[in-house]
Amino acid sequence: MTQTAPSKRTQVGRLPKRGDYSKETIHGILDAAFLCHVGFVVDGQPFVIPTGYGRDGEILYIHGSAASRMLRNLEKGVDACVTVTLLDGIVLARAAFHHSMNYRSVVMLGTATLVEDAETKREALRIISEQIVPGRWDDVRLPNDQELKATTVLAFPIDEASAKVRTGPPADDEEDYGLDIWAGVLPLSLQPGTLIPDPRLKSGIDVVPTYRVGLQ
Amino acid sequence: MTQTAPSKRTQVGRLPKRGDYSKETIHGILDAAFLCHVGFVVDGQPFVIPTGYGRDGEILYIHGSAASRMLRNLEKGVDACVTVTLLDGIVLARAAFHHSMNYRSVVMLGTATLVEDAETKREALRIISEQIVPGRWDDVRLPNDQELKATTVLAFPIDEASAKVRTGPPADDEEDYGLDIWAGVLPLSLQPGTLIPDPRLKSGIDVVPTYRVGLQ
Ligand SMILES: Cc1cc2nc3c(=O)[nH]c(=O)nc-3n(C[C@H](O)[C@H](O)[C@H](O)COP(=O)(O)OP(=O)(O)OC[C@H]3O[C@@H](n4cnc5c(N)ncnc54)[C@H](O)[C@@H]3O)c2cc1C
Ligand SMILES: Cc1cc2nc3c(=O)[nH]c(=O)nc-3n(C[C@H](O)[C@H](O)[C@H](O)COP(=O)(O)OP(=O)(O)OC[C@H]3O[C@@H](n4cnc5c(N)ncnc54)[C@H](O)[C@@H]3O)c2cc1C
Ligand code: HEM
Ligand code: HEM
Repeated sequence: MTQTAPSKRTQVGRLPKRGDYSKETIHGILDAAFLCHVGFVVDGQPFVIPTGYGRDGEILYIHGSAASRMLRNLEKGVDACVTVTLLDGIVLARAAFHHSMNYRSVVMLGTATLVEDAETKREALRIISEQIVPGRWDDVRLPNDQELKATTVLAFPIDEASAKVRTGPPADDEEDYGLDIWAGVLPLSLQPGTLIPDPRLKSGIDVVPTYRVGLQ
Repeated sequence: MTQTAPSKRTQVGRLPKRGDYSKETIHGILDAAFLCHVGFVVDGQPFVIPTGYGRDGEILYIHGSAASRMLRNLEKGVDACVTVTLLDGIVLARAAFHHSMNYRSVVMLGTATLVEDAETKREALRIISEQIVPGRWDDVRLPNDQELKATTVLAFPIDEASAKVRTGPPADDEEDYGLDIWAGVLPLSLQPGTLIPDPRLKSGIDVVPTYRVGLQ
């Protein structure tokens, strides 16, 4: 167990017992998701942009167009915040006031760096792809040089980070437990539906893949 | 149809044909979700914090502790960004490069204001609750004055906003359509599981509610 102390800026303020700064927890949450929200500032205005990611050790990789404003700003090394949120359920208390959600979330602060080395860049794209659709990389037409050139990959450090987690049943006021109100948790999770074949799928390709996405 | 022109700051830069500035689209996305990511800046450092919300006309309401750092900063009227993201699927192309996601997202810029009027505040909390768990408000013990006092509600304007939406099958390079690779879309959606009764549920309460959450 590696217990990391929170930095001043990542100390969870409200309901601090839900805060967790261990690598186990932080990495566990980051590995169960693949979507983050990236915050950065342009001319004093914060922007929050949704983006996919993949984790490799202490690094989070993100990718996109070499012309993306988000990536072009981030690669300058501006202060950024990357947040990952997994919603696990709605907590139905007896009192409106005590309603809540069960969740696992991570907030990371830091600055991104451009991945320039060609081999690292290719590997980072594989890591992003495998995090989003495990197994897919082995089945597809891999990137060529032109595609790699059009793509920017950034590395974001996971070192200044906090997790916050809520689990379990509602916590009502003692006097409300006697009320005739149903209480409990409605679990929620991101679930895959039935694969929709491309209308232009080549005839003869009838082995439908079974990637595990969004089941954690 | 009300078509709003994008502001300079909300003009979608990459893949601009996926941008949409109509109220119909923006409100539709905001009504299909209840979770947002709020971006704000403290001492030059951006923070991105996940929070529930409810929409009422041109206003997004958020709530939390009167002592929350996020809310205390926002209520000062600092520049903020509120982003809502719905993930609809993973787009499996033949080329790794053309993989994508189907999604609906909204980015809003503006400054929040404190909801001070007691009636508006109570109504805003009802709107948040009904957006997250439609129907629940009528079944619960409503907030008392002490609870309302402990709660801060902020109003965020939806007027400077953009939507970005991707739907449909992959778009591969013409020469790749002949490859023996399965392609299509894996739909994803937030799905409710089986309700978990509170271990302290009062005996005799056996009518399990049927709220519709996370089905859009
Ligand atoms: C799905 C979901 C829904 C939520 N809905 C609400 C809501 O409706 N109202 C509400 O008040 N709060 C909500 N929260 C909690 C919210 O994210 C904040 O934790 C909360 O507002 C308290 O903020 P604060 O002022 O203590 O944090 P701050 O003092 O602003 O944060 C200080 C530091 O604590 C850490 N931190 C704060 N929040 C988180 C987090 N969620 N995950 C990881 N690290 C964190 C960060 O490092 C941050 O820099 C929700 C959280 C999740 C995951
Ligand atoms: C689920 C999901 C996953 C994504 N994954 C990736 C990824 O892995 N890589 C990647 O490059 N992009 C990803 N995107 C797209 C990403 O959100 C940006 O749109 C994209 O990076 C292009 O940014 P930009 O430089 O054009 O935007 P900017 O020029 O930074 O944005 C300009 C303005 O456009 C508007 N805008 C930009 N993006 C959005 C949006 N998503 N929704 C609403 N308004 C928006 C905002 O008003 C913003 O202020 C994803 C989006 C979603 C919803
Ligand atoms: C469906 C209804 C509601 C839901 C789903 C909901 C959800 C949440 C969530 C997820 C949090 C964050 C808890 C955390 O940080 O872990 C929160 C905080 C809070 N909510 Fe609500 N809420 C609801 C209704 C209300 C109402 C009606 C009130 C007031 C009357 C209220 C008052 C508060 C307060 C004061 C906090 C801050 C707690 C703290 O930081 O100490 N909520 N809510
Ligand atoms: C599972 C694998 C992948 C997924 C799920 C994925 C997902 C995405 C998504 C959702 C976007 C945003 C599109 C939009 O703005 O609407 C994007 C953009 C982009 N991706 Fe990927 N991607 C994957 C792999 C790759 C790889 C391997 C490369 C490069 C070889 C790549 C290069 C790009 C580029 C260049 C953009 C920017 C497009 C533009 O803004 O014009 N992606 N990706």
